[in-house]
Amino acid sequence: MKIYVQKYGGTSVGNPELIKKVAKKIVKRAKDGTGLVVVVSAMGDSTDRLIDLAHDITVNPPDREIDMLISTGEQVSISLLAMAIDSMKHPVVSLTGAQVGIKTNDIHKRAKILKVNSKRIIEELNNGKIVIVAGFQGITENNEITTLGRGGSDTTAVALAAALKAEKCEIYTDVDGVYTADPYIVPEAKKLDVISYDEMLEMASLGAKVLHPRSVELAKQYNVTLEVKSSFKECKGTIIKEVKSMEDVLRVSGITYDKKIAKVAIIGVPDKPGIAFKIFSDLADNNISVDMIIQSVMYENINDISFTVAQDDLNKTVSIIEKTAAELGARGVEYDKNVAKVSVVGAGINKTEVAKAMFQAMSDEGINIQMISTSEIKISCVINANDVEKAVKAIHSKFILNGIDIQHHSAI
Amino acid sequence: MKIYVQKYGGTSVGNPELIKKVAKKIVKRAKDGTGLVVVVSAMGDSTDRLIDLAHDITVNPPDREIDMLISTGEQVSISLLAMAIDSMKHPVVSLTGAQVGIKTNDIHKRAKILKVNSKRIIEELNNGKIVIVAGFQGITENNEITTLGRGGSDTTAVALAAALKAEKCEIYTDVDGVYTADPYIVPEAKKLDVISYDEMLEMASLGAKVLHPRSVELAKQYNVTLEVKSSFKECKGTIIKEVKSMEDVLRVSGITYDKKIAKVAIIGVPDKPGIAFKIFSDLADNNISVDMIIQSVMYENINDISFTVAQDDLNKTVSIIEKTAAELGARGVEYDKNVAKVSVVGAGINKTEVAKAMFQAMSDEGINIQMISTSEIKISCVINANDVEKAVKAIHSKFILNGIDIQHHSAI
Repeated sequence: MKIYVQKYGGTSVGNPELIKKVAKKIVKRAKDGTGLVVVVSAMGDSTDRLIDLAHDITVNPPDREIDMLISTGEQVSISLLAMAIDSMKHPVVSLTGAQVGIKTNDIHKRAKILKVNSKRIIEELNNGKIVIVAGFQGITENNEITTLGRGGSDTTAVALAAALKAEKCEIYTDVDGVYTADPYIVPEAKKLDVISYDEMLEMASLGAKVLHPRSVELAKQYNVTLEVKSSFKECKGTIIKEVKSMEDVLRVSGITYDKKIAKVAIIGVPDKPGIAFKIFSDLADNNISVDMIIQSVMYENINDISFTVAQDDLNKTVSIIEKTAAELGARGVEYDKNVAKVSVVGAGINKTEVAKAMFQAMSDEGINIQMISTSEIKISCVINANDVEKAVKAIHSKFILNGIDIQHHSAI
Repeated sequence: MKIYVQKYGGTSVGNPELIKKVAKKIVKRAKDGTGLVVVVSAMGDSTDRLIDLAHDITVNPPDREIDMLISTGEQVSISLLAMAIDSMKHPVVSLTGAQVGIKTNDIHKRAKILKVNSKRIIEELNNGKIVIVAGFQGITENNEITTLGRGGSDTTAVALAAALKAEKCEIYTDVDGVYTADPYIVPEAKKLDVISYDEMLEMASLGAKVLHPRSVELAKQYNVTLEVKSSFKECKGTIIKEVKSMEDVLRVSGITYDKKIAKVAIIGVPDKPGIAFKIFSDLADNNISVDMIIQSVMYENINDISFTVAQDDLNKTVSIIEKTAAELGARGVEYDKNVAKVSVVGAGINKTEVAKAMFQAMSDEGINIQMISTSEIKISCVINANDVEKAVKAIHSKFILNGIDIQHHSAI
């Protein structure tokens, strides 16, 4: 039996009407005898509503009990989806993470999947059933309920696809694929047919909201072919798979942005060995992940060190860093929430040429670049948040004008 | 360690404020080192809201998926109660039915508990934790989630008390005990200090809403002492235990009523052997439980057979019975929803004297009695639903006037 894993996000199952629509789509697909395993997120904003309820009880709920609470969200949506499919007379069964046997470590609220037991799913598929699985959740060796953190349902879907050796893992969402830029900002942005794991990883990390980086990493590791496509429109989406370039073409996959970052700077740090280690180990110890790091040119043995963090982590970061700054005898800490990151992503991009075009586009628009960082397949700039849309538009059209085509990768 | 099992119903944990109040009460009680196992129902009307959601999807959801859905209600309330207790700095853990190991048969929506595994609870109690357990739910041998049906959380509490050999099982609710009659109807009704399992069973079955009969039966079977008391008032409740009467006193425990019944009559049934068997086996096959059954005096080899069912079952009952009536060649089926049952319950009651007082009280009020049935410890009458309050008041005061005291049983 050919097995396909599908994943529907919270907006796709946000109310009973949408659930019935999704059910119809699933039943239609299952008609030809395809083995379908469907991973579902919690309905709409139900997870947020559960967390609000927890915060009505206490400001600091234990992580274990938060997992106990929010894992109910997916349990509700799998049962409702199974009811909808059953009402269409197709055999179906819903399974919680515990029932499937999605074993995780015991780090609550951001557990990692250790093992997926495919026995029960295979049995149910062999009985002709569509199998609906609760995304985002798992169970530890000691029977404790865990959740996987952000992007958890995508991760569940990819892990199941890997364990079941599925033909493909289809991620259904409210957009119909991965675009060269956000179509709301750049109407002429093109949908990509194919993109490599690494490029998607950069795109995902940089704020293209269609897929969580964890799930892309996992897909790469187990060579699971992903397809991002629309929950309700009938059209091809974007395939994410291993793409081997035959020649070293200059190829830009897309322009992305992320508004949910903040910039933090420690001003006037004495230039001594171990300073950077001290700063970033204090942050790492507190589970804060730092993205771009810039150390300014030293002047009179004094440095400025700047970095970006997720906006959600800003308060925590500042309180840690103020302590660190005092210990180091730095002059102070500054931070800015009103920043954003704009990036150009592409495999084998000729950095100088791309960088030049990117910087020129922003300069033409009078946009000031605050920080720059580069990797093998991307160039990112931190700019004022108010300039984001202007920057994305300008860069996107610059590449088209400059003949650095923002390509479909269907030739591979 | 002395272990107490407590159970809080849905109205006691209906919102975050109430949950915090309950938590405070629990923590106070646990301070002296008592081992506390607390069974909780779903918050307020959340189960009904989940069922409404299911009915938005389909009119006929599969029982298995209903259990998957509604079992989330208790999972939400246990996690919130555990958060509230944690915020008061007392060690606590919440456990689902599956985590405890409440093993049931596989009859969804009304599963029976087969076995309770006390290992995990004992471990957690030994670690100094208050253990919060989801009521109403269990798990089958095949890892399927089940629910126990009406009164399920009471049943969970009693089953745990039996398995843990608890000192007592305390049922906290919105009333402060079992009364000789509904205090809203009879303001002079007295709270009972003690009542026997059998009397409570009659009271529970007859509509005193404080305890579900299943849980009383289970308590009797395992000799678990129950106490029904108020969630929020600090006072003694009513103890339910084995009561051995030293002498055959005439003792009436209470007057109860049940408005949620309906009367069905098959008119003009030919008097042949096997007729009653046919009628009631058709109903039993459809899981409808019949309460009072009256066969009228035969006239010209033709009978009328009347019985009562739960109002919820009326539509189903009528559709079955109309078929049966046609097969039997009966003249027709009549039914009436506007009826209620009023009962007098008491151990060792002298039936003639009690019956006389009861019938006289109703006659004095001009209330017509439609059906009568009796058992060792109760006399029930079906009357027009509009007469219920008048009947309960009249009977209650009649017993006081007649010197048939409606007693506290503290002398036992």
